[in-house]
Amino acid sequence: METALDEIRSELKALGEDDDIVSIDTEDLHAHGYSEWSTVNPDGLPVAVVYPRSTEQVSVIARICHKYRIPLIGYSGGSSLEGHFSAPYGGISVDFAYMGKILQFNKEDMDIVVQPSIGWQDLNEQLKQWNSGLFFPVDPGPSAKIGGMIGTNCSGTNAVKYGTMKDWVINLTVVLADGTIIKTRRRPRKSSAGYNLNGMFVGSEGTLGLVTEATLKLAIVPEETSVAVVSFPTIRDAASAAAGVMQAGIPVACMEVMDDVQMKVVNLGGATAPKVWKEAPTLFFKFAGTKASVQDNINRVAAITKANLGSNFEFARSESEQKLLWSARKESLWSMLALRKGSEQVWSTDVAVPFSRLADLIEISKKEMDEMGLFASILGHIGDGNFHESIMYDRTNPAEVEKVEMCVKNMVNRALDMEGTCTGEHSIGWGKKASLLREVGPDTVGVMMQIKKALDPLWILNPGKIFDVPS
Amino acid sequence: METALDEIRSELKALGEDDDIVSIDTEDLHAHGYSEWSTVNPDGLPVAVVYPRSTEQVSVIARICHKYRIPLIGYSGGSSLEGHFSAPYGGISVDFAYMGKILQFNKEDMDIVVQPSIGWQDLNEQLKQWNSGLFFPVDPGPSAKIGGMIGTNCSGTNAVKYGTMKDWVINLTVVLADGTIIKTRRRPRKSSAGYNLNGMFVGSEGTLGLVTEATLKLAIVPEETSVAVVSFPTIRDAASAAAGVMQAGIPVACMEVMDDVQMKVVNLGGATAPKVWKEAPTLFFKFAGTKASVQDNINRVAAITKANLGSNFEFARSESEQKLLWSARKESLWSMLALRKGSEQVWSTDVAVPFSRLADLIEISKKEMDEMGLFASILGHIGDGNFHESIMYDRTNPAEVEKVEMCVKNMVNRALDMEGTCTGEHSIGWGKKASLLREVGPDTVGVMMQIKKALDPLWILNPGKIFDVPS
Repeated sequence: METALDEIRSELKALGEDDDIVSIDTEDLHAHGYSEWSTVNPDGLPVAVVYPRSTEQVSVIARICHKYRIPLIGYSGGSSLEGHFSAPYGGISVDFAYMGKILQFNKEDMDIVVQPSIGWQDLNEQLKQWNSGLFFPVDPGPSAKIGGMIGTNCSGTNAVKYGTMKDWVINLTVVLADGTIIKTRRRPRKSSAGYNLNGMFVGSEGTLGLVTEATLKLAIVPEETSVAVVSFPTIRDAASAAAGVMQAGIPVACMEVMDDVQMKVVNLGGATAPKVWKEAPTLFFKFAGTKASVQDNINRVAAITKANLGSNFEFARSESEQKLLWSARKESLWSMLALRKGSEQVWSTDVAVPFSRLADLIEISKKEMDEMGLFASILGHIGDGNFHESIMYDRTNPAEVEKVEMCVKNMVNRALDMEGTCTGEHSIGWGKKASLLREVGPDTVGVMMQIKKALDPLWILNPGKIFDVPS
Repeated sequence: METALDEIRSELKALGEDDDIVSIDTEDLHAHGYSEWSTVNPDGLPVAVVYPRSTEQVSVIARICHKYRIPLIGYSGGSSLEGHFSAPYGGISVDFAYMGKILQFNKEDMDIVVQPSIGWQDLNEQLKQWNSGLFFPVDPGPSAKIGGMIGTNCSGTNAVKYGTMKDWVINLTVVLADGTIIKTRRRPRKSSAGYNLNGMFVGSEGTLGLVTEATLKLAIVPEETSVAVVSFPTIRDAASAAAGVMQAGIPVACMEVMDDVQMKVVNLGGATAPKVWKEAPTLFFKFAGTKASVQDNINRVAAITKANLGSNFEFARSESEQKLLWSARKESLWSMLALRKGSEQVWSTDVAVPFSRLADLIEISKKEMDEMGLFASILGHIGDGNFHESIMYDRTNPAEVEKVEMCVKNMVNRALDMEGTCTGEHSIGWGKKASLLREVGPDTVGVMMQIKKALDPLWILNPGKIFDVPS
C-alpha cells in the first residue's frame, strides 16, 4: 500500500502536480468509510483518500491501484443510503471534491459538461444566475452530487415528469479499472450507435469505472409553476386519486404522497410553523407549464381528488404560497431526523411497485410496523410507484435493530411479490444485495457479474457492492 | 449443420412440438439474408431459418447452436437499413413470426407484455380496439416490429416528445448465447436495482441475446391533437425556427423538417393529390394535449415560425385536415421510392448532431450532393438533431455507387466533427462499423467488445454486426 501511495505521489509530481493529493488522516478515512445516514456500515475503512484534480490524475491512480490490486471507491456527495462508498475491503477512496467545475455550457443545445463533484443544486443555482432559462431536473437529496447521482441512477420528486438520471446523460468520460480513459459517445441528444454505455455506467455504482466528466441534458424552466395539497381519509383514497391523475394523462410535474404519521412528524418538527397540517394521508402536486395549462391542470386534479374523497384542496396563488405548501414535503426528512433522541437513528429505505399495487403495499407495511410498535413514516413518489419508509430506531438496541431489519425485509419481499423492485432510486450498495438476488435471480445477477468481470477482472472497483466478490 | 438441425427438430419434438420449425427453402433463406432496403448486403445467406413458438424453443435452439458454434441471427420486421439481419457468417436466422402475441395487458399500470414479432402499428390498433386510452409511442418505419425495434433502439417522429425505444422498456426476457433464459427485471416503472440490463440489451442488435418477451410502458392518448405545416425560404430559417420552438419549451409532439427536394418528390409522387405543396424547406408539427394547450401551442409556434420568415402557416381544424397536412410527411419515403426507375435504389441513412449544428450540416451536405449531381432529399426529426438523407442511385453503376458512398461517408464524418453520431436511430448493423469506430474510438469500441465477449464468448450471436469478429 505504502509503495502504491508513494508511486501515486511521485507520478503526479512528475506530471507537475504540486499539492499532495493523498490523505491518510484518521478522521478523513472515517468520513469516507462510514455514514450515519446509511442503513448499513460494513467493517473496514479506506486506507487512504485521494483528491484528484483531473481525469488524467484519476487515470494514474487507477493504473497504479490496478498494478497492486488495491480497491478504488468513488466518493462525491456522501449522501447515499446503502453503504455505497463503504470500504469493506479497504483500498483507496477517490474523493472528487476538487473536480466540481462546469467545463462547458452549450446553451443552444441545452446541455452542459460538468465534473462529478458538482452538486445538482449548485448546478441549478449557476444556471439561474446565468439567466439561462434552463435547469437540471433530477432532484434527489439536497447534498447529492452528479458523480454519485450517476452511480446510483437516482431520481426524486421530478421523476414522474422528467424521468431518472439515466435519461439526462448524453455522454460520460470514464476511467476504467486499468486506467484507460474512455468517452461513451460524443454530444448528440439521440443516438443508436453501438451499445448504450451511458445506460450501463449509470447505476453501476462505481463498480465498472470512475466517471470523471459528464455531459448532461438540460430542461427548459417552465413559464409558470404552482403547487397544490390535498388530504384523504386513507392512503388507499390518496393512491386511487393519484392513479386517476396518471390515467387521465395530466402532466403533473411532481406528485408526492405523505402518510398521516409523516404529516404529524412535520407538525411536531415545527419547521413549517406557524402552518399546521392536517394529520392525514396527503398528496402534494407541482404543476409546470404555461399559465393556461397550469390552471387547467389544477382544475382537473381538483376534480379527480374530490371524486376520491379528497378534502382541504389548497393551491398556491403566489410563489410564497408555493413554498409554504411545498414546505411540508421539503422538510419531511429533516423533521423526522429532528425527532431523534439519544442514540436513535432513522432507517430510510425505498421500494417501487407497479402503481396499481402501491396502496396495498403501503397499507400492509404500515399495519405490520404498527403491530411491531415501530415509529415509521411513509412518503413516496407515488406517480412512479416508488415510496420511502423512514423508521426510527435505536441502533444500540439489538432487539430493535432486528425488528427494523425484519420489517424492511418483509416490505422488500412484498414489493417483489407484487412484481416490484427492492429499490426505485437508492440502488443496491452493500445493503440490498440479497434483495437484488431475490429480485432478478442468480442468472440475471450472473450476467451483471460477467460484465463486471469483463471490465474489471481484478475486481478492484468498489468491490462488494451490488453483488458479492466471487470467492 | 445437418446434425444441429436434426437435434433441434428432435429436441422440440420431444418437447411436444408437432410442426417442423426449420426451413431450408431457398427463397426463405434469401428473404432472411438479403434486403432491398438496406444500404449494404454482405455476401452470405443463412443456412436455415427457424420459426420458434416460445421462449423455451428459442432456448433449445441457442443451446444446440452454442454446442456446434453456429451463428444465430434474430429476425422480426426485416425493415432495418444497415444489413442488421444479414448472415455474413452463415448460421441460422431465428424468425419470430410465430411469436407476435400480446401476453398480458396491465391497463391500470399502463404497461403491456408482448412477444417480439408484434408490429408497433398492430399493437396500437389493438389498444385502440380495446378503447384503452393508451398507445405505444415509438414510431419507426411502419413495418417495424418490437423485437427489431429493441435491437436497434429505434425511434421516429414522436421521439422529440416521448424519447426512444430504450425509454419504453420495463423488462426483457432474453435467451443468452448458451440458451440460458433471463429476465432483466420485474415490472416496476422505475428501478435502480443493479446494472441497467434493459439499457444494455436495447440497441445491442441481437449480439448479446435474443429477446423473446418485452414489457413495455404505454402512454396516454392525448385528449386533442393537431397538425401544422409552415414553409421557409431556407433550411437555415427552418432550423432556427425549430430551435426557437425547442428553446421556448413548447412541448410539441412531433417536429419534422423536409427540404425543397423532398417536397418536390411528394408532389411528383402524387400520393397526396390534389394537394400541391410549396417546394420549399418545410416544418411539420404535431401537437398533443388538452384542447386549450394545443391551441396555445399552435399560437406560440405560429409566432416563432413567423419571426423566422416562415410563411403559408397552415394548421388543421379537423381530423381529416390533420391527415391531409401530415400526409406529405407520411408519404415522403414512398414518394421517393415511387420515383425509382429500372435498377435505381434509394440509399437511406441517418445521422444526428447537437441541434445548433443541424442547419450547417444539412446545408453543406446538400451542396455537396448537388455538386456531385446526385438526386437526394432530406427529411429529419429536427428536434432531436436527427435527419435522414435519401439518395437515388443506380446500384448497377459502380461509379454512382462510389459517389453515394463517398457522400454518405462525408456526411457522417462531418456529423462526427460537429460532435454528432453516425446514426441517430438506424443503428450500426454491418454498414456503419467503420463510422462507429471513428465516432467513439477503439477503446470505447473495445469496452463494447469486452461485454460481447463476456456474454457470448463463442461470438455466435449476430456476428459481424456493430464491430468486426476478432480474428
